[in-house]
Amino acid sequence: VPEPALDPAQPLALYMEASTRHPSGKMGFGLLRYSPNPIACVIDSTAAGRDARDVTGIPRSAPIVATLAAARALGAEVLVLGIAPPGGRVPDAWWAVIDEAVRLGLSIVNGLHDRLAPRHPSLRAGQWIWDMRVEPEGLTIATGAAARLPNRRVVFVGSDMAIGKMSAALEVQRAARARGIDAAFVATGQIGIAIAGRGVALDAVRLDYACGAIEREVMAHSGAELVLVEGQGSLVHPASTATLPLLRGAMPTHLVLCHRAGQKTLARIPEIAIPPLVALAGLYEDLAASCGTFPRPRTAAIALNTFHIADDAQAERAVRTLQDETGLPCCDPVRQGAGRLLEALSRA
Amino acid sequence: VPEPALDPAQPLALYMEASTRHPSGKMGFGLLRYSPNPIACVIDSTAAGRDARDVTGIPRSAPIVATLAAARALGAEVLVLGIAPPGGRVPDAWWAVIDEAVRLGLSIVNGLHDRLAPRHPSLRAGQWIWDMRVEPEGLTIATGAAARLPNRRVVFVGSDMAIGKMSAALEVQRAARARGIDAAFVATGQIGIAIAGRGVALDAVRLDYACGAIEREVMAHSGAELVLVEGQGSLVHPASTATLPLLRGAMPTHLVLCHRAGQKTLARIPEIAIPPLVALAGLYEDLAASCGTFPRPRTAAIALNTFHIADDAQAERAVRTLQDETGLPCCDPVRQGAGRLLEALSRA
Repeated sequence: VPEPALDPAQPLALYMEASTRHPSGKMGFGLLRYSPNPIACVIDSTAAGRDARDVTGIPRSAPIVATLAAARALGAEVLVLGIAPPGGRVPDAWWAVIDEAVRLGLSIVNGLHDRLAPRHPSLRAGQWIWDMRVEPEGLTIATGAAARLPNRRVVFVGSDMAIGKMSAALEVQRAARARGIDAAFVATGQIGIAIAGRGVALDAVRLDYACGAIEREVMAHSGAELVLVEGQGSLVHPASTATLPLLRGAMPTHLVLCHRAGQKTLARIPEIAIPPLVALAGLYEDLAASCGTFPRPRTAAIALNTFHIADDAQAERAVRTLQDETGLPCCDPVRQGAGRLLEALSRA
Repeated sequence: VPEPALDPAQPLALYMEASTRHPSGKMGFGLLRYSPNPIACVIDSTAAGRDARDVTGIPRSAPIVATLAAARALGAEVLVLGIAPPGGRVPDAWWAVIDEAVRLGLSIVNGLHDRLAPRHPSLRAGQWIWDMRVEPEGLTIATGAAARLPNRRVVFVGSDMAIGKMSAALEVQRAARARGIDAAFVATGQIGIAIAGRGVALDAVRLDYACGAIEREVMAHSGAELVLVEGQGSLVHPASTATLPLLRGAMPTHLVLCHRAGQKTLARIPEIAIPPLVALAGLYEDLAASCGTFPRPRTAAIALNTFHIADDAQAERAVRTLQDETGLPCCDPVRQGAGRLLEALSRA
């Protein structure tokens, strides 16, 4: 596995067949919003001829085409499988698409559980297949080394899965860079990895190496002033166990708690109520510190996802209300920019 | 993988070459102490001719022999690799031993990271190789189902790694069964799995399925009155992340905190002090409950490992002192029997 596999100069084709207007296209949406790579085109025969900006609402222009050949003609070098199908496995209909892409000389970014590289042992010079949902080689167990770094390390934790942790981290990185701050993003899920060009798919790592995998990524960015670690899962989700390796591997100095405005229960388990956010933030801090064993991080701010609120003024009211309720700085970094979050992280 | 692979009627040979008097023989020691299987013999050419009871101090008699052929002659059907070599990989010198064991018709219990089964595709009828340090097939993500069971579920948590969590759970099981209580043991590490004949090697499971793997084992024992879950790792160890899947998968009603008498710091990381035990128990409870999201377990007792204290009266003094300090019932279940722990778990 070449790591990082993705050169930010390489033009991408985002495979989003029938998904440019559907939540399953989230890998493609993430890249449209945040990838530093040129987007040669989006592939979706059901919307061919239109512009991705108009179809998705994401402010980045890219032609939508119907075929791989058209994508190649537009200069695409890398095909990104931009759809998250149920179960995370490659749907039967995709195999022919993948085979044709390989024949056309496209490299492939694959965030699904199935490994594609072993099916295509002979590739052209410079062509590669990156199966990113695989445990990286050479992992070791963690040592707590990140606690000794002099920089600021932020873990983006959440009140639920899929609540905007990656976007919040990337928006803080964007805001920091705009101010000349050396800010690194540590990707821990497939969309973040495709954006950053490196990272670790935490969900594919064996338990023994999970802390070590995060620690290795954080230590690789030890020179950065600000290390922004993409969180996964939530302490209140019964299937989620990523919090502990994220906290131990990163030894954060700060937390940002991510939440969706108005959400009272877990999206997929409505019987589980989200606890008061200040109490939840305290639990994340307590767990990170473990009775004074490790440095105690400070919850610097709340990143509030207001995507479902149409009106900007109403979104800002939700932000202000939560800020008053919790006493924590709050903003929607995607809608409003991450200035307020960055400011909160810059305080001692 | 046949599961459970190990029939409790099958006589075992414990491979402990040069390790019957060395801590690396811990898999063998565990089986001598707790396996329900007949122990045909121990293999250690450096102690051949003696009795395992005299060499190890564990009150179970078994002849020590020098060769696999001698083990076979004593009726052994299964060879257990009873040594934990550094790194958990098969040492070079063992390959010939394993090949000979397969030729002699022995089945093999392997708790190391290397897979042996693929090297020996053709076995005799009834012969098998159980590579237990492998993620089980067919895992799913957890749902929190264990919280709805009416039984008592105990997770054995610890102030460090390798502090006696498995032994404490097995001693409680023994004490419970002696009183006619249907008590199940959920094994989560290779030694416990070899003893129980089933379980899940948690350290080999990918993060996404870790809670689900524990939940599946707990639900498989849902008919038992008392479910005793072998803990792994510790919340104060920087490399350990097993606590969260154990708590979420088991949804415990009770915790037993395991500790070694007099231990002030982590054994392998002396810079890390063990926090006051009552505070540590509170953190485990807080994490299990997650701000009221899940049932809050009660820390019922402390299992105190006094193995290093020669004198019984002195060990009992250590137990009494800790009991007074913490206000929690306390005993060394290996030395004193688990009666006090069982009693504490039986209270409402």
